[in-house]
Amino acid sequence: MKILVFGLGALGTVYSCLLKEQGHYVAGVDREAVVAAVQEHGVQVSGIWGTHVQELDKLVSRLEDLEERDFDLLIITVKSYDTAEVARQMAGFISPTTYVLLAQNGYGNFEAAAQYIDPARLIVGRVIFGAETLGAGVSKVTVIADDVIIGSPDSLIAAGTLDSISQACQDAGIPTRTSKEVMKYVWGKIIYNSALNPLGAILEVPYGRLADNPFTRQLMDGIIEEIFAVLHACGQKTLWAEPGTYRQVFYGQLIPPTAQHHASMLQDIQRGRKTEIDALNGAVVKLGRQCGVATPLNEVIVAMIKAKESMDG
Amino acid sequence: MKILVFGLGALGTVYSCLLKEQGHYVAGVDREAVVAAVQEHGVQVSGIWGTHVQELDKLVSRLEDLEERDFDLLIITVKSYDTAEVARQMAGFISPTTYVLLAQNGYGNFEAAAQYIDPARLIVGRVIFGAETLGAGVSKVTVIADDVIIGSPDSLIAAGTLDSISQACQDAGIPTRTSKEVMKYVWGKIIYNSALNPLGAILEVPYGRLADNPFTRQLMDGIIEEIFAVLHACGQKTLWAEPGTYRQVFYGQLIPPTAQHHASMLQDIQRGRKTEIDALNGAVVKLGRQCGVATPLNEVIVAMIKAKESMDG
Repeated sequence: MKILVFGLGALGTVYSCLLKEQGHYVAGVDREAVVAAVQEHGVQVSGIWGTHVQELDKLVSRLEDLEERDFDLLIITVKSYDTAEVARQMAGFISPTTYVLLAQNGYGNFEAAAQYIDPARLIVGRVIFGAETLGAGVSKVTVIADDVIIGSPDSLIAAGTLDSISQACQDAGIPTRTSKEVMKYVWGKIIYNSALNPLGAILEVPYGRLADNPFTRQLMDGIIEEIFAVLHACGQKTLWAEPGTYRQVFYGQLIPPTAQHHASMLQDIQRGRKTEIDALNGAVVKLGRQCGVATPLNEVIVAMIKAKESMDG
Repeated sequence: MKILVFGLGALGTVYSCLLKEQGHYVAGVDREAVVAAVQEHGVQVSGIWGTHVQELDKLVSRLEDLEERDFDLLIITVKSYDTAEVARQMAGFISPTTYVLLAQNGYGNFEAAAQYIDPARLIVGRVIFGAETLGAGVSKVTVIADDVIIGSPDSLIAAGTLDSISQACQDAGIPTRTSKEVMKYVWGKIIYNSALNPLGAILEVPYGRLADNPFTRQLMDGIIEEIFAVLHACGQKTLWAEPGTYRQVFYGQLIPPTAQHHASMLQDIQRGRKTEIDALNGAVVKLGRQCGVATPLNEVIVAMIKAKESMDG
């Protein structure tokens, strides 16, 4: 396959390095400083999937410097708030046989990309392994909770196509499977992140303490309740029939292994970066408005994160 | 007058010292360490009202060590969450001619004290000068926004009685006046504190930054809106006809002089102490439930402060 990875952060580094190692042609796009560093030392992966170093076939900081237009797969790993702009730029690189894998967090990436790219070319990925950036193009895989799940939200892509992309990732060492209901899995991750990430950032404590404290537990229960109400009203499917079932999984299975985890939003805020709140609780508020469901709790959470972002940034 | 001051913190020190200086008999109650310190160096006041040092007539750490039962005035300056317990203890010191001045923050002090003391003996005070504790029985008066206002919420006390107590405070150098609508003034302070104090503690920024930031401004507007809805539904009167009028005063007049001010709740939390959230936003939530008004925003604020209290404490 001929692959273009847009964004060589923690995730893009893993994808580009492991796919390149499998013999695919892999080009990478990132800003100039990252491109310069990767040109020097390649993309490097360490951690639970072993140590890997690869030189990419092409590195550019501006898409217009790419001559190729015949990619089989574009992998977008930028932050969710950049999806629309990146999709706009990438639209010119879509041939009739190109697929685009959106490997971002939160809700709204498919909708944002579909403004510029035919939805029949868009694959949504629910990525639930953890990787951290040790430097430009240097990534460490720390944990994996489940396979990456890929799929077409409206089943616009043939099963065989999704299977072959999934197999390529699997062969590269990234556990991956397809699902006809990928959005159920995406929402699963959004609910988890929306309950934990902003509160962890506001109160500056790890996830386990949010689950142990009766007051943050009450807040998280309320956030989860609102999200389920919105999803039901908007006809979005979830993996759990109702919030009570989810809460059992959430407190019983999902939080314990990540009890020491600190909210990525807190790191974002401390480093003066934008958070992905608009793709998490912000997307819930927006969907709630569309479907006539009040989300007062998620609204407060969004305002507090945006206040913290704009005050500390 | 024969006066007993319960609590020799910042406020109790000011009252006991300045009233004693006017020749009144003044006894004080506080815990043993404070009593020992005040026995050594007296009560001391500095700041905008000048420097004053007085020895009190009596100091006890346990009420049962007081022989007197013939006080004219008891002044309660403890934190609002201790009002009920202190009123219970003080009930035995109420003679037919004793009045009790509740000089605490927030809503619910009158109601809590009235469980144990005849409401016709209870005076509510709205104290809006600032004093900080420099040590046990050592207080500095830093700012005054308006006279202390005293009154009987249900007009159960003769105007002449209130006037003479007000005059005694006035003579002692504590600007004071009476009002038949003291609760209007108490609510004015509660609205101000409920909008600013918890958000300042959660986000750890001074009041001015909460007013400057569009997201915290949106949150404060929402908190104010909910409080007015509760007050209207519960038949409580305010000094402003509607929230829009209050907001103009709030942003235009009240915040600018306190823009550098840090939330007292933040200090409470950092020192591992309980906050007065239950007498502020917590009282709004409780009243809202009684009168059938939803207060989702104030509920979130209460839960976050209680989480922060119990996590950092």
